[in-house]
Amino acid sequence: MRESWPIFGVDLHLEIDPALGRQRGLEQALRAAIRSRRLVSGTRLPATRRLAADLGLSRGTVRGAYDQLVAEGYLTADQGSGTAVAQLPHLSADVPGEPSAPAPEVPWHDLRPGRPDASAFPVTAWLRSARRALTAAPADAYAYGDPRGQFELRTAVAAYLGRTRGVLAHPDRIVITNGYVQALALLTRVLAENGPATVAMEDPGAAFHREVVRRAGATVAPLPVDDRGARTDLLATFPSVDAVEVTPAHQYPTGHTLHPARRRELVAWARSTSGLVIENDYDGEFRYDRHPVGAIQGTAAEHVAYVGTVSKTLGPALRLGWVVCPRRLLTPLVEAKQYDDHHTEVPGQLTLADFIDSHAYDRHIRTSRLRYQRRRDQLLARLRALPGPPARRPAVHGIAAGLHVLLSLPDQGPTEEDVLSAAAARALRLGRLNGRWHASGDHPQGVIIGYGTPSEHAYPAALDALTDALDCVYGAA
Amino acid sequence: MRESWPIFGVDLHLEIDPALGRQRGLEQALRAAIRSRRLVSGTRLPATRRLAADLGLSRGTVRGAYDQLVAEGYLTADQGSGTAVAQLPHLSADVPGEPSAPAPEVPWHDLRPGRPDASAFPVTAWLRSARRALTAAPADAYAYGDPRGQFELRTAVAAYLGRTRGVLAHPDRIVITNGYVQALALLTRVLAENGPATVAMEDPGAAFHREVVRRAGATVAPLPVDDRGARTDLLATFPSVDAVEVTPAHQYPTGHTLHPARRRELVAWARSTSGLVIENDYDGEFRYDRHPVGAIQGTAAEHVAYVGTVSKTLGPALRLGWVVCPRRLLTPLVEAKQYDDHHTEVPGQLTLADFIDSHAYDRHIRTSRLRYQRRRDQLLARLRALPGPPARRPAVHGIAAGLHVLLSLPDQGPTEEDVLSAAAARALRLGRLNGRWHASGDHPQGVIIGYGTPSEHAYPAALDALTDALDCVYGAA
Repeated sequence: MRESWPIFGVDLHLEIDPALGRQRGLEQALRAAIRSRRLVSGTRLPATRRLAADLGLSRGTVRGAYDQLVAEGYLTADQGSGTAVAQLPHLSADVPGEPSAPAPEVPWHDLRPGRPDASAFPVTAWLRSARRALTAAPADAYAYGDPRGQFELRTAVAAYLGRTRGVLAHPDRIVITNGYVQALALLTRVLAENGPATVAMEDPGAAFHREVVRRAGATVAPLPVDDRGARTDLLATFPSVDAVEVTPAHQYPTGHTLHPARRRELVAWARSTSGLVIENDYDGEFRYDRHPVGAIQGTAAEHVAYVGTVSKTLGPALRLGWVVCPRRLLTPLVEAKQYDDHHTEVPGQLTLADFIDSHAYDRHIRTSRLRYQRRRDQLLARLRALPGPPARRPAVHGIAAGLHVLLSLPDQGPTEEDVLSAAAARALRLGRLNGRWHASGDHPQGVIIGYGTPSEHAYPAALDALTDALDCVYGAA
Repeated sequence: MRESWPIFGVDLHLEIDPALGRQRGLEQALRAAIRSRRLVSGTRLPATRRLAADLGLSRGTVRGAYDQLVAEGYLTADQGSGTAVAQLPHLSADVPGEPSAPAPEVPWHDLRPGRPDASAFPVTAWLRSARRALTAAPADAYAYGDPRGQFELRTAVAAYLGRTRGVLAHPDRIVITNGYVQALALLTRVLAENGPATVAMEDPGAAFHREVVRRAGATVAPLPVDDRGARTDLLATFPSVDAVEVTPAHQYPTGHTLHPARRRELVAWARSTSGLVIENDYDGEFRYDRHPVGAIQGTAAEHVAYVGTVSKTLGPALRLGWVVCPRRLLTPLVEAKQYDDHHTEVPGQLTLADFIDSHAYDRHIRTSRLRYQRRRDQLLARLRALPGPPARRPAVHGIAAGLHVLLSLPDQGPTEEDVLSAAAARALRLGRLNGRWHASGDHPQGVIIGYGTPSEHAYPAALDALTDALDCVYGAA
């Protein structure tokens, strides 16, 4: 229904959407006219009788529309002066133009670390578990949930961790979080609750996690890493450290496994200072040449907050993780979770519980482990075949586990930049060791290769691009 | 396979689970023996040859198990002195007894506010959307997602909010959060990023949200509420306020709608001080006698952070909400979200996007609105029939919208405690106005009735219990 109102001295067209009904349609049309500045602030609207006649509507309808827009602040109604358009901000500036859809990805070969093969997500099995879990769930599963997480999932995770990771887990000691980042943020907030806190973090390590800790209110102390993993032997020399975050099963990014002596030193430090060990078991499920090293937590349950997630086993998009924590931390941790987002969403928790209990989780991990091991072996075969004198060639670290390896580059050989630009020239993305140091400076050179990232069909081409890039860099000498 | 080792001077039984294979079975058995203190710290283990012979295993198997447990810290291996049980904490104290399953709920009539009817969650329709959305999703939907939230959901929400709540929404201005609590926590952290911040919050209001704001680093200033809603007219007299959190559509818990004059004063305050309005539209979908009052954000998009969720429309368990925020807040808010938990889980977002786009959301809200309106009318009919002199009887507020009403109790009548204890005597749970004041003291008495909470079949009995309790309290005079 189109109407022209000479009344405002402009040829004003009101599009009244019949689907909305007369009054709401009129309101929408007036809102649109006001927002688009076709009706400017201060403009007096016609009396309801007059407008009703013009539009062929009842006076009640027009009055209803006016009242509504007065209530919403678009119009003002004053005794005497009648109804007028209110003062509004210049809305055209309020909203940008078209929604920016995610930029279409240029086809890159992606060998960046920290990502599993997302194309391997078991959609069908996951949906099967979702259907089973959600149809079986009691009504109150859709009301507010337990801030610690659903009992079903905590029970399933406790059994799984005890069985596969040697974790001394108990459903009452588990807090479900939205993946690792939230677990780290919550633990840090708990540490920083009663005054300044310092968290020692591996150097090199995940820069993003350092920022998570800083924003959560703690200071970060860099803990050097060598080929035995984190230098926990140095902790005794640190002035005051409240917690130490480590990746013992497969140090990120160097890939080393924390040496037994270092594990003992770490636990000894925790016992003597009653400091907290944050055990980031981000890829502990993936170990290829021998079965996994059990978690440190299994030997020091009251000193270690063990954190695991499904980010590398199923997919980061699920944002599902768990903290198995010492008794003293349980209450503050649960409170921190509660005041951060109440609890983790329930449908995903119930689905994962079913997924674990039905052994679909074990099956998926076994399949993934074989696939990743095959990829790793193919990668190592390529790396062994590099040209050039051994002294210039990179050394490969962290091959025993996880989804990535580190190429450490000898000083007399090509630099990080050389390798990365040769890769970029072949539309290949690799990880740089560079950004992962605590402080910039003169650090050992290295490149990180995440062989878990590509989909199965994309992996061979990525390997070819890598070989091509490295042949070029190391052949040219 | 059972083995007895006289070697340790005790009759030690090792349960070796054949399913685990020889080496892992031996490891598990040794771990269990050490944890249970059947093998105490310092105990020397037999030489591999000896134990292998005793157990009928190969030396390699036994050595492998020893190495593994040394790596895990259960055993120590020293040159000369051989392999021994390491020092471990007293693990029996590490873990409490049986997992405490959620306590079975005694059958209460539940008329507490703040909860929708969880039994009405549309499981089948939700699973249908989940199947459609997840099977159609590209592989990278299971990798790390957009910290702002999935584009599909932000687009669906923007259209929905523009259409139903008069919100000036745009996908680029929306950040998906884990419900209202996280939205409030993130906004507060952004405000508190550069020094001390103060947030004015309605008094009475949700005590839990005040604590969320405090923990997120801001000071809470109480903003009185009267029958025109929050006293925004007082804001000018507040020394320094960075943000004001309001529930304009249906004040929680008094149920009043923010008066148009108060809306104008609030927006004027925001414009003149460039302060932030946090518009908590927690139950804006439910208005019964006229269609909803549009959001304040629609008239002041650059001054209002509009927050909505599915907690009252679908269920709090989904932990899905959205912030439509001013341009200046967008980047800091997205960063706060990213460093808090990376992003909200993707499957739920994609499912909700499909649920909205397929109009299942509108249908569900329409059905719910009719059901809740019917419940409200039944409740009001009961309340009108209360015995006793009018001067003593409660006044009913907030009937026009939402899922709860407030009974304000006149001084000369029964007290909050009188009503609540009469209710408790009938196994009926109600909300108390008492705990919702900013500071304890001599406050008006009131009781909050959440008629949305019970399942459809449980509602009549809950109403009977309520009537019975009130008849008793108001009859007795």
